[in-house]
Amino acid sequence: MCQLLGMNCNTPTDVRFSFSGFTQRAGKTGDHTDGWGIAFFEDKGLRHFVDHERAIDSPVAKLIREYPIRSKNVIAHIRKATQGVVSLENCHPFVRELWGHYWVFAHNGDLKNFSPKLHSHFQPVGSTDSEQAFCWLMQELSKSHARMPSIDELTITLRELAPGIAKHGTFNFLLSNGQALWAHASTHLYYIERKHPFMQAQLCDEDLKVNFASETTPDDKVAVVVTAPLTSNEEWTAFQSGELKVFVNGQARES
Amino acid sequence: MCQLLGMNCNTPTDVRFSFSGFTQRAGKTGDHTDGWGIAFFEDKGLRHFVDHERAIDSPVAKLIREYPIRSKNVIAHIRKATQGVVSLENCHPFVRELWGHYWVFAHNGDLKNFSPKLHSHFQPVGSTDSEQAFCWLMQELSKSHARMPSIDELTITLRELAPGIAKHGTFNFLLSNGQALWAHASTHLYYIERKHPFMQAQLCDEDLKVNFASETTPDDKVAVVVTAPLTSNEEWTAFQSGELKVFVNGQARES
Repeated sequence: MCQLLGMNCNTPTDVRFSFSGFTQRAGKTGDHTDGWGIAFFEDKGLRHFVDHERAIDSPVAKLIREYPIRSKNVIAHIRKATQGVVSLENCHPFVRELWGHYWVFAHNGDLKNFSPKLHSHFQPVGSTDSEQAFCWLMQELSKSHARMPSIDELTITLRELAPGIAKHGTFNFLLSNGQALWAHASTHLYYIERKHPFMQAQLCDEDLKVNFASETTPDDKVAVVVTAPLTSNEEWTAFQSGELKVFVNGQARES
Repeated sequence: MCQLLGMNCNTPTDVRFSFSGFTQRAGKTGDHTDGWGIAFFEDKGLRHFVDHERAIDSPVAKLIREYPIRSKNVIAHIRKATQGVVSLENCHPFVRELWGHYWVFAHNGDLKNFSPKLHSHFQPVGSTDSEQAFCWLMQELSKSHARMPSIDELTITLRELAPGIAKHGTFNFLLSNGQALWAHASTHLYYIERKHPFMQAQLCDEDLKVNFASETTPDDKVAVVVTAPLTSNEEWTAFQSGELKVFVNGQARES
Protein backbone atom coordinates (compact mmCIF):
# COMPACT_ATOMS: atom_id res chain seq x y z
CA MET A 1 0.00 0.00 0.00
CA CYS A 2 0.99 3.62 -0.37
CA GLN A 3 0.59 6.80 1.62
CA LEU A 4 -1.02 10.09 0.65
CA LEU A 5 -0.42 13.70 1.71
CA GLY A 6 -2.50 16.66 0.58
CA MET A 7 -2.54 20.32 1.54
CA ASN A 8 -5.11 23.02 0.72
CA CYS A 9 -4.66 26.62 1.91
CA ASN A 10 -6.11 30.10 1.51
CA THR A 11 -2.63 31.57 0.95
CA PRO A 12 0.46 30.00 -0.70
CA THR A 13 2.05 27.94 2.09
CA ASP A 14 5.31 26.05 2.50
CA VAL A 15 4.67 22.28 2.82
CA ARG A 16 8.23 21.37 3.94
CA PHE A 17 7.36 20.53 7.58
CA SER A 18 4.67 18.00 6.60
CA PHE A 19 6.68 16.67 3.64
CA SER A 20 9.73 16.09 5.84
CA GLY A 21 7.76 13.95 8.31
CA PHE A 22 5.91 12.20 5.49
CA THR A 23 9.09 11.17 3.63
CA GLN A 24 10.51 9.55 6.79
CA ARG A 25 7.97 6.82 6.03
CA ALA A 26 9.81 6.10 2.76
CA GLY A 27 12.64 4.10 4.31
CA LYS A 28 12.96 5.14 7.95
CA THR A 29 9.65 4.88 9.87
CA GLY A 30 7.90 3.03 7.00
CA ASP A 31 8.74 0.85 3.97
CA HIS A 32 7.10 2.91 1.21
CA THR A 33 10.26 2.85 -0.89
CA ASP A 34 9.03 2.13 -4.44
CA GLY A 35 9.04 5.72 -5.66
CA TRP A 36 7.38 8.97 -4.69
CA GLY A 37 6.05 12.17 -6.16
CA ILE A 38 4.69 15.61 -5.34
CA ALA A 39 2.79 18.25 -7.32
CA PHE A 40 2.45 21.93 -6.38
CA PHE A 41 -0.01 24.28 -8.04
CA GLU A 42 1.09 27.88 -8.51
CA ASP A 43 -2.07 29.56 -9.81
CA LYS A 44 -2.88 27.54 -12.94
CA GLY A 45 0.75 26.37 -13.30
CA LEU A 46 2.08 23.15 -11.86
CA ARG A 47 5.40 21.86 -10.56
CA HIS A 48 5.43 18.07 -10.74
CA PHE A 49 8.25 15.96 -9.33
CA VAL A 50 8.34 12.15 -9.51
CA ASP A 51 11.20 9.78 -8.71
CA HIS A 52 11.48 6.01 -8.50
CA GLU A 53 14.18 6.27 -5.81
CA ARG A 54 13.27 6.24 -2.11
CA ALA A 55 12.02 9.67 -0.98
CA ILE A 56 14.21 9.41 2.13
CA ASP A 57 17.42 9.71 0.08
CA SER A 58 16.36 10.93 -3.39
CA PRO A 59 18.27 14.10 -4.43
CA VAL A 60 15.00 15.51 -5.79
CA ALA A 61 13.18 14.96 -2.46
CA LYS A 62 16.13 16.63 -0.71
CA LEU A 63 15.59 19.68 -2.94
CA ILE A 64 11.89 19.75 -1.99
CA ARG A 65 12.72 19.51 1.74
CA GLU A 66 15.18 22.43 1.41
CA TYR A 67 13.60 24.75 -1.18
CA PRO A 68 10.48 26.61 0.03
CA ILE A 69 7.92 26.17 -2.75
CA ARG A 70 4.74 27.93 -1.63
CA SER A 71 1.46 26.59 -2.94
CA LYS A 72 -2.26 26.63 -2.16
CA ASN A 73 -2.77 23.04 -3.35
CA VAL A 74 -0.24 20.21 -2.94
CA ILE A 75 -0.56 16.44 -3.43
CA ALA A 76 2.25 14.03 -2.48
CA HIS A 77 2.55 10.22 -2.53
CA ILE A 78 5.02 7.59 -1.40
CA ARG A 79 4.63 4.23 -3.09
CA LYS A 80 4.76 0.64 -1.98
CA ALA A 81 4.02 -1.22 -5.20
CA THR A 82 1.01 -3.58 -5.27
CA GLN A 83 0.15 -3.40 -8.99
CA GLY A 84 2.59 -2.23 -11.69
CA VAL A 85 6.39 -2.47 -11.64
CA VAL A 86 8.65 0.08 -9.92
CA SER A 87 9.21 2.64 -12.68
CA LEU A 88 8.90 6.36 -13.25
CA GLU A 89 5.64 6.10 -15.23
CA ASN A 90 3.99 4.31 -12.27
CA CYS A 91 4.88 7.02 -9.70
CA HIS A 92 1.98 9.11 -8.39
CA PRO A 93 0.72 11.80 -8.54
CA PHE A 94 -0.50 11.61 -12.13
CA VAL A 95 -1.33 14.73 -14.18
CA ARG A 96 -3.77 15.37 -17.02
CA GLU A 97 -5.25 18.52 -18.58
CA LEU A 98 -9.03 18.96 -18.70
CA TRP A 99 -10.98 22.15 -19.61
CA GLY A 100 -7.69 24.11 -19.76
CA HIS A 101 -6.70 23.21 -16.19
CA TYR A 102 -4.20 20.67 -14.87
CA TRP A 103 -5.66 17.92 -12.68
CA VAL A 104 -3.52 15.98 -10.21
CA PHE A 105 -4.43 12.60 -8.69
CA ALA A 106 -2.87 10.17 -6.21
CA HIS A 107 -4.30 6.91 -4.88
CA ASN A 108 -3.73 4.63 -1.92
CA GLY A 109 -5.27 1.18 -2.14
CA ASP A 110 -5.69 -1.81 -4.37
CA LEU A 111 -8.46 -2.30 -6.96
CA LYS A 112 -9.43 -5.84 -8.04
CA ASN A 113 -11.06 -6.79 -11.36
CA PHE A 114 -11.01 -3.14 -12.40
CA SER A 115 -10.88 -2.68 -16.20
CA PRO A 116 -12.87 0.45 -16.96
CA LYS A 117 -13.88 1.27 -20.54
CA LEU A 118 -11.49 4.03 -21.58
CA HIS A 119 -12.84 5.06 -25.00
CA SER A 120 -12.07 8.74 -24.67
CA HIS A 121 -8.96 10.91 -24.67
CA PHE A 122 -7.52 9.79 -21.33
CA GLN A 123 -5.32 6.70 -21.56
CA PRO A 124 -2.92 5.42 -18.89
CA VAL A 125 0.81 5.66 -19.65
CA GLY A 126 1.90 3.20 -16.93
CA SER A 127 0.46 -0.09 -15.68
CA THR A 128 -1.20 0.78 -12.35
CA ASP A 129 -4.85 0.37 -11.35
CA SER A 130 -4.51 3.90 -9.92
CA GLU A 131 -3.79 5.61 -13.26
CA GLN A 132 -6.67 3.68 -14.84
CA ALA A 133 -8.98 4.98 -12.09
CA PHE A 134 -7.74 8.55 -12.69
CA CYS A 135 -8.26 8.28 -16.47
CA TRP A 136 -11.79 6.96 -15.92
CA LEU A 137 -12.59 9.83 -13.50
CA MET A 138 -11.27 12.38 -16.04
CA GLN A 139 -13.25 10.74 -18.85
CA GLU A 140 -16.48 10.71 -16.84
CA LEU A 141 -15.99 14.31 -15.62
CA SER A 142 -15.45 15.44 -19.23
CA LYS A 143 -18.63 13.61 -20.28
CA SER A 144 -20.65 15.13 -17.41
CA HIS A 145 -19.66 18.77 -17.96
CA ALA A 146 -18.90 20.65 -21.19
CA ARG A 147 -16.61 23.12 -19.42
CA MET A 148 -15.21 23.67 -15.92
CA PRO A 149 -18.19 23.62 -13.53
CA SER A 150 -18.25 25.08 -10.01
CA ILE A 151 -16.49 23.33 -7.16
CA ASP A 152 -19.86 22.27 -5.70
CA GLU A 153 -21.00 20.77 -9.02
CA LEU A 154 -17.69 18.90 -9.32
CA THR A 155 -18.14 17.56 -5.78
CA ILE A 156 -21.61 16.24 -6.63
CA THR A 157 -20.30 14.49 -9.77
CA LEU A 158 -17.31 13.01 -7.92
CA ARG A 159 -19.62 11.69 -5.18
CA GLU A 160 -21.60 9.92 -7.93
CA LEU A 161 -18.48 8.50 -9.59
CA ALA A 162 -16.33 7.38 -6.63
CA PRO A 163 -18.51 4.44 -5.47
CA GLY A 164 -18.27 2.89 -8.97
CA ILE A 165 -14.53 2.47 -8.43
CA ALA A 166 -14.60 1.92 -4.64
CA LYS A 167 -16.64 -1.27 -5.05
CA HIS A 168 -13.51 -2.82 -6.64
CA GLY A 169 -11.38 -2.43 -3.49
CA THR A 170 -9.63 0.22 -1.45
CA PHE A 171 -9.96 3.65 -3.02
CA ASN A 172 -8.43 6.38 -0.89
CA PHE A 173 -7.57 9.23 -3.25
CA LEU A 174 -6.62 12.91 -3.46
CA LEU A 175 -7.55 15.05 -6.47
CA SER A 176 -6.95 18.74 -7.21
CA ASN A 177 -7.44 21.17 -10.08
CA GLY A 178 -5.59 23.97 -8.28
CA GLN A 179 -8.85 25.48 -6.93
CA ALA A 180 -9.83 22.79 -4.42
CA LEU A 181 -8.65 19.50 -2.94
CA TRP A 182 -11.01 16.50 -3.04
CA ALA A 183 -10.28 13.59 -0.71
CA HIS A 184 -12.09 10.24 -0.70
CA ALA A 185 -11.60 7.50 1.89
CA SER A 186 -12.32 3.79 1.80
CA THR A 187 -10.15 2.97 4.81
CA HIS A 188 -7.46 5.26 6.27
CA LEU A 189 -7.50 9.03 5.78
CA TYR A 190 -7.24 11.83 8.36
CA TYR A 191 -7.40 15.61 8.14
CA ILE A 192 -6.67 18.66 10.23
CA GLU A 193 -7.63 22.32 9.75
CA ARG A 194 -5.09 24.73 11.17
CA LYS A 195 -6.08 28.34 11.76
CA HIS A 196 -5.56 31.19 14.23
CA PRO A 197 -4.47 30.82 17.03
CA PHE A 198 -1.65 28.69 15.59
CA MET A 199 0.30 26.42 17.93
CA GLN A 200 3.47 24.37 18.04
CA ALA A 201 3.35 20.97 16.34
CA GLN A 202 5.60 17.94 16.86
CA LEU A 203 6.15 15.45 14.00
CA CYS A 204 5.50 11.77 14.79
CA ASP A 205 8.13 10.46 12.35
CA GLU A 206 11.15 12.57 13.28
CA ASP A 207 12.31 14.82 16.06
CA LEU A 208 11.13 18.05 14.49
CA LYS A 209 8.87 20.76 15.91
CA VAL A 210 7.51 23.86 14.24
CA ASN A 211 5.79 26.85 15.82
CA PHE A 212 3.17 27.71 13.20
CA ALA A 213 2.43 31.01 15.00
CA SER A 214 5.78 32.41 13.86
CA GLU A 215 5.31 31.19 10.26
CA THR A 216 1.77 32.45 9.62
CA THR A 217 -0.54 35.45 9.76
CA PRO A 218 -3.83 35.34 11.73
CA ASP A 219 -5.80 35.10 8.45
CA ASP A 220 -4.06 31.93 7.24
CA LYS A 221 -6.02 28.71 6.96
CA VAL A 222 -4.37 25.41 6.10
CA ALA A 223 -5.97 21.97 5.75
CA VAL A 224 -3.77 18.86 5.65
CA VAL A 225 -5.05 15.40 4.64
CA VAL A 226 -2.91 12.31 5.19
CA THR A 227 -3.06 8.50 5.41
CA ALA A 228 -1.89 8.54 9.04
CA PRO A 229 -1.57 11.58 11.36
CA LEU A 230 1.73 13.45 10.94
CA THR A 231 1.89 15.14 14.35
CA SER A 232 1.66 13.71 17.86
CA ASN A 233 0.14 16.70 19.71
CA GLU A 234 -2.76 17.72 17.45
CA GLU A 235 -6.28 16.34 16.96
CA TRP A 236 -6.68 14.70 13.54
CA THR A 237 -10.18 13.77 12.31
CA ALA A 238 -10.69 10.37 10.65
CA PHE A 239 -12.71 10.14 7.43
CA GLN A 240 -15.71 7.81 7.42
CA SER A 241 -15.56 4.92 4.98
CA GLY A 242 -17.03 6.09 1.66
CA GLU A 243 -16.75 9.77 2.60
CA LEU A 244 -15.69 12.35 -0.01
CA LYS A 245 -14.76 15.79 1.34
CA VAL A 246 -13.72 18.92 -0.54
CA PHE A 247 -11.30 21.46 0.92
CA VAL A 248 -11.38 25.07 -0.32
CA ASN A 249 -9.31 27.98 1.01
CA GLY A 250 -7.88 25.85 3.82
CA GLN A 251 -11.06 24.37 5.23
CA ALA A 252 -13.52 21.57 4.60
CA ARG A 253 -16.62 22.79 2.80
CA GLU A 254 -19.79 21.74 4.61
CA SER A 255 -22.03 19.52 2.53
CA MET B 1 12.50 35.11 -28.33
CA CYS B 2 13.46 31.92 -26.55
CA GLN B 3 16.05 29.23 -26.99
CA LEU B 4 15.62 25.48 -27.48
CA LEU B 5 17.77 22.48 -26.58
CA GLY B 6 16.94 18.89 -27.52
CA MET B 7 18.86 15.62 -27.15
CA ASN B 8 18.11 12.23 -28.68
CA CYS B 9 20.34 9.19 -27.96
CA ASN B 10 20.52 5.44 -28.46
CA THR B 11 21.43 4.92 -24.79
CA PRO B 12 20.39 6.91 -21.69
CA THR B 13 22.79 9.86 -21.62
CA ASP B 14 23.60 12.62 -19.16
CA VAL B 15 22.68 16.05 -20.61
CA ARG B 16 24.46 18.11 -17.91
CA PHE B 17 27.32 19.37 -20.16
CA SER B 18 24.93 20.81 -22.77
CA PHE B 19 22.42 22.05 -20.17
CA SER B 20 25.17 23.86 -18.27
CA GLY B 21 26.27 25.80 -21.35
CA PHE B 22 22.65 26.38 -22.41
CA THR B 23 21.58 27.87 -19.06
CA GLN B 24 24.43 30.42 -19.17
CA ARG B 25 22.24 32.12 -21.79
CA ALA B 26 19.59 32.65 -19.08
CA GLY B 27 21.27 35.61 -17.42
CA LYS B 28 25.01 35.46 -18.21
CA THR B 29 25.71 35.17 -21.97
CA GLY B 30 22.06 35.85 -22.93
CA ASP B 31 18.92 37.53 -21.55
CA HIS B 32 16.49 34.58 -21.67
CA THR B 33 15.47 35.12 -18.06
CA ASP B 34 11.65 34.75 -18.08
CA GLY B 35 11.55 31.14 -16.93
CA TRP B 36 12.86 27.84 -18.15
CA GLY B 37 12.01 24.15 -18.21
CA ILE B 38 13.33 20.71 -19.05
CA ALA B 39 11.69 17.32 -19.58
CA PHE B 40 13.49 13.96 -19.49
CA PHE B 41 11.91 10.73 -20.69
CA GLU B 42 12.81 7.55 -18.82
CA ASP B 43 11.19 4.83 -20.92
CA LYS B 44 7.52 5.89 -20.95
CA GLY B 45 7.91 7.91 -17.75
CA LEU B 46 8.71 11.61 -17.67
CA ARG B 47 10.48 14.01 -15.34
CA HIS B 48 9.27 17.55 -15.99
CA PHE B 49 10.80 20.60 -14.32
CA VAL B 50 9.60 24.16 -14.93
CA ASP B 51 10.49 27.34 -13.08
CA HIS B 52 9.73 31.00 -13.63
CA GLU B 53 13.03 32.03 -12.06
CA ARG B 54 16.17 32.55 -14.18
CA ALA B 55 17.81 29.20 -15.05
CA ILE B 56 21.21 30.67 -14.19
CA ASP B 57 20.33 30.88 -10.47
CA SER B 58 17.19 28.75 -9.98
CA PRO B 59 17.68 26.09 -7.25
CA VAL B 60 15.87 23.58 -9.47
CA ALA B 61 18.23 24.26 -12.41
CA LYS B 62 21.17 23.86 -10.01
CA LEU B 63 19.82 20.40 -9.10
CA ILE B 64 19.63 19.48 -12.82
CA ARG B 65 23.22 20.68 -13.41
CA GLU B 66 24.46 18.56 -10.45
CA TYR B 67 22.27 15.41 -10.53
CA PRO B 68 23.00 13.04 -13.45
CA ILE B 69 19.58 12.20 -14.90
CA ARG B 70 20.18 9.87 -17.86
CA SER B 71 17.66 9.96 -20.67
CA LYS B 72 17.30 9.05 -24.35
CA ASN B 73 15.07 12.05 -25.10
CA VAL B 74 15.37 15.48 -23.50
CA ILE B 75 13.79 18.85 -24.36
CA ALA B 76 14.79 22.09 -22.60
CA HIS B 77 13.78 25.71 -23.06
CA ILE B 78 14.79 29.11 -21.73
CA ARG B 79 12.19 31.81 -22.16
CA LYS B 80 12.24 35.45 -23.13
CA ALA B 81 8.57 36.36 -23.06
CA THR B 82 6.98 37.72 -26.26
CA GLN B 83 3.36 36.57 -25.71
CA GLY B 84 1.94 35.60 -22.29
CA VAL B 85 3.02 36.90 -18.90
CA VAL B 86 5.96 35.50 -16.91
CA SER B 87 4.31 32.70 -14.92
CA LEU B 88 4.73 29.02 -14.26
CA GLU B 89 1.90 27.96 -16.60
CA ASN B 90 3.62 29.76 -19.51
CA CYS B 91 6.98 27.97 -19.06
CA HIS B 92 7.93 25.47 -21.75
CA PRO B 93 8.19 22.56 -22.32
CA PHE B 94 4.48 21.68 -22.24
CA VAL B 95 3.24 18.12 -21.65
CA ARG B 96 0.12 16.27 -22.77
CA GLU B 97 -0.87 12.59 -22.96
CA LEU B 98 -1.94 11.09 -26.29
CA TRP B 99 -2.46 7.38 -27.11
CA GLY B 100 -1.09 6.41 -23.66
CA HIS B 101 2.22 8.25 -24.18
CA TYR B 102 3.44 11.58 -22.86
CA TRP B 103 4.25 14.21 -25.49
CA VAL B 104 6.59 17.11 -24.79
CA PHE B 105 6.79 20.34 -26.83
CA ALA B 106 8.83 23.54 -26.74
CA HIS B 107 8.71 26.47 -29.17
CA ASN B 108 10.96 29.34 -30.15
CA GLY B 109 9.36 32.11 -32.16
CA ASP B 110 6.36 34.35 -32.36
CA LEU B 111 3.05 33.54 -34.08
CA LYS B 112 0.78 36.38 -35.31
CA ASN B 113 -2.99 36.16 -35.82
CA PHE B 114 -2.92 32.56 -34.68
CA SER B 115 -6.23 31.40 -33.14
CA PRO B 116 -6.62 27.75 -34.07
CA LYS B 117 -9.96 26.00 -33.59
CA LEU B 118 -9.47 23.86 -30.49
CA HIS B 119 -12.67 21.82 -30.32
CA SER B 120 -11.12 18.64 -29.02
CA HIS B 121 -9.62 17.49 -25.72
CA PHE B 122 -6.46 19.61 -25.80
CA GLN B 123 -6.91 23.08 -24.31
CA PRO B 124 -4.13 25.49 -23.30
CA VAL B 125 -3.68 26.15 -19.57
CA GLY B 126 -1.54 29.29 -20.03
CA SER B 127 -1.74 32.22 -22.44
CA THR B 128 1.07 31.60 -24.95
CA ASP B 129 0.81 31.17 -28.71
CA SER B 130 3.20 28.23 -28.20
CA GLU B 131 0.85 26.16 -26.04
CA GLN B 132 -1.99 26.87 -28.51
CA ALA B 133 0.22 25.55 -31.32
CA PHE B 134 1.03 22.42 -29.28
CA CYS B 135 -2.65 21.78 -28.47
CA TRP B 136 -3.53 22.15 -32.16
CA LEU B 137 -0.76 19.71 -33.18
CA MET B 138 -1.99 17.17 -30.58
CA GLN B 139 -5.60 17.60 -31.72
CA GLU B 140 -4.70 17.14 -35.39
CA LEU B 141 -2.44 14.13 -34.65
CA SER B 142 -5.27 12.50 -32.68
CA LYS B 143 -7.67 13.15 -35.59
CA SER B 144 -5.20 11.71 -38.13
CA HIS B 145 -4.40 8.45 -36.30
CA ALA B 146 -6.61 6.27 -34.08
CA ARG B 147 -3.64 4.92 -32.14
CA MET B 148 0.12 5.49 -31.96
CA PRO B 149 1.44 5.19 -35.54
CA SER B 150 5.04 4.50 -36.55
CA ILE B 151 7.69 7.20 -36.27
CA ASP B 152 7.75 7.54 -40.07
CA GLU B 153 3.97 7.97 -40.25
CA LEU B 154 4.12 10.60 -37.49
CA THR B 155 6.86 12.43 -39.40
CA ILE B 156 4.71 12.53 -42.55
CA THR B 157 1.73 13.91 -40.59
CA LEU B 158 3.87 16.51 -38.78
CA ARG B 159 5.35 17.65 -42.14
CA GLU B 160 1.77 18.22 -43.35
CA LEU B 161 0.75 20.10 -40.18
CA ALA B 162 3.78 22.33 -39.46
CA PRO B 163 3.39 24.71 -42.46
CA GLY B 164 -0.17 25.53 -41.33
CA ILE B 165 1.28 27.09 -38.18
CA ALA B 166 4.57 28.32 -39.66
CA LYS B 167 2.71 30.67 -42.02
CA HIS B 168 1.73 32.69 -38.91
CA GLY B 169 5.34 33.54 -38.01
CA THR B 170 8.46 31.94 -36.59
CA PHE B 171 7.88 28.31 -35.66
CA ASN B 172 11.04 26.61 -34.47
CA PHE B 173 9.92 23.69 -32.29
CA LEU B 174 11.02 20.47 -30.61
CA LEU B 175 8.59 17.60 -29.98
CA SER B 176 9.12 14.16 -28.45
CA ASN B 177 7.03 11.16 -27.41
CA GLY B 178 10.00 9.40 -25.78
CA GLN B 179 10.70 7.35 -28.93
CA ALA B 180 11.97 10.10 -31.25
CA LEU B 181 12.75 13.81 -31.33
CA TRP B 182 11.14 15.94 -34.04
CA ALA B 183 12.67 19.35 -34.80
CA HIS B 184 11.22 21.99 -37.10
CA ALA B 185 12.98 25.21 -38.12
CA SER B 186 11.65 28.47 -39.45
CA THR B 187 14.81 30.45 -38.71
CA HIS B 188 17.55 29.33 -36.29
CA LEU B 189 18.15 25.69 -35.41
CA TYR B 190 21.37 23.64 -35.51
CA TYR B 191 22.18 20.01 -34.86
CA ILE B 192 25.15 17.75 -34.31
CA GLU B 193 25.44 13.94 -34.28
CA ARG B 194 28.15 12.66 -31.96
CA LYS B 195 29.43 9.10 -32.36
CA HIS B 196 32.64 7.07 -32.19
CA PRO B 197 35.42 8.28 -32.25
CA PHE B 198 34.30 10.78 -29.58
CA MET B 199 36.40 13.92 -29.07
CA GLN B 200 36.84 16.75 -26.60
CA ALA B 201 34.31 19.58 -26.79
CA GLN B 202 34.58 23.16 -25.53
CA LEU B 203 31.45 25.09 -24.53
CA CYS B 204 30.94 28.53 -26.13
CA ASP B 205 29.10 29.99 -23.12
CA GLU B 206 31.40 29.04 -20.25
CA ASP B 207 34.95 27.80 -19.72
CA LEU B 208 34.05 24.11 -19.61
CA LYS B 209 35.44 21.23 -21.66
CA VAL B 210 34.40 17.60 -21.70
CA ASN B 211 36.17 14.62 -23.22
CA PHE B 212 33.25 12.58 -24.54
CA ALA B 213 35.60 9.61 -25.19
CA SER B 214 35.92 9.01 -21.44
CA GLU B 215 32.14 9.33 -20.87
CA THR B 216 30.88 7.02 -23.63
CA THR B 217 31.18 3.58 -25.19
CA PRO B 218 32.01 3.14 -28.92
CA ASP B 219 28.36 2.19 -29.63
CA ASP B 220 26.87 5.41 -28.22
CA LYS B 221 25.14 7.84 -30.56
CA VAL B 222 23.92 11.24 -29.41
CA ALA B 223 22.18 13.95 -31.43
CA VAL B 224 21.85 17.47 -30.00
CA VAL B 225 19.59 20.16 -31.52
CA VAL B 226 19.86 23.76 -30.37
CA THR B 227 18.95 27.34 -31.32
CA ALA B 228 22.64 28.36 -31.53
CA PRO B 229 25.70 26.03 -31.43
CA LEU B 230 26.80 25.13 -27.90
CA THR B 231 30.44 24.25 -28.61
CA SER B 232 33.20 26.21 -30.32
CA ASN B 233 35.28 23.36 -31.76
CA GLU B 234 32.65 21.16 -33.43
CA GLU B 235 30.79 21.39 -36.76
CA TRP B 236 27.07 22.12 -36.25
CA THR B 237 24.68 21.77 -39.21
CA ALA B 238 22.07 24.50 -39.78
CA PHE B 239 18.47 23.51 -40.54
CA GLN B 240 16.95 24.87 -43.74
CA SER B 241 13.94 27.14 -43.31
CA GLY B 242 10.81 24.98 -43.30
CA GLU B 243 12.77 21.79 -42.62
CA LEU B 244 11.40 19.14 -40.23
CA LYS B 245 13.85 16.44 -39.17
CA VAL B 246 13.31 13.41 -36.93
CA PHE B 247 16.06 11.99 -34.72
CA VAL B 248 15.92 8.34 -33.64
CA ASN B 249 18.54 6.45 -31.64
CA GLY B 250 20.94 9.39 -31.74
CA GLN B 251 20.89 10.17 -35.43
CA ALA B 252 18.81 11.99 -38.01
CA ARG B 253 16.61 9.62 -39.99
CA GLU B 254 17.08 10.10 -43.73
CA SER B 255 13.89 11.14 -45.46
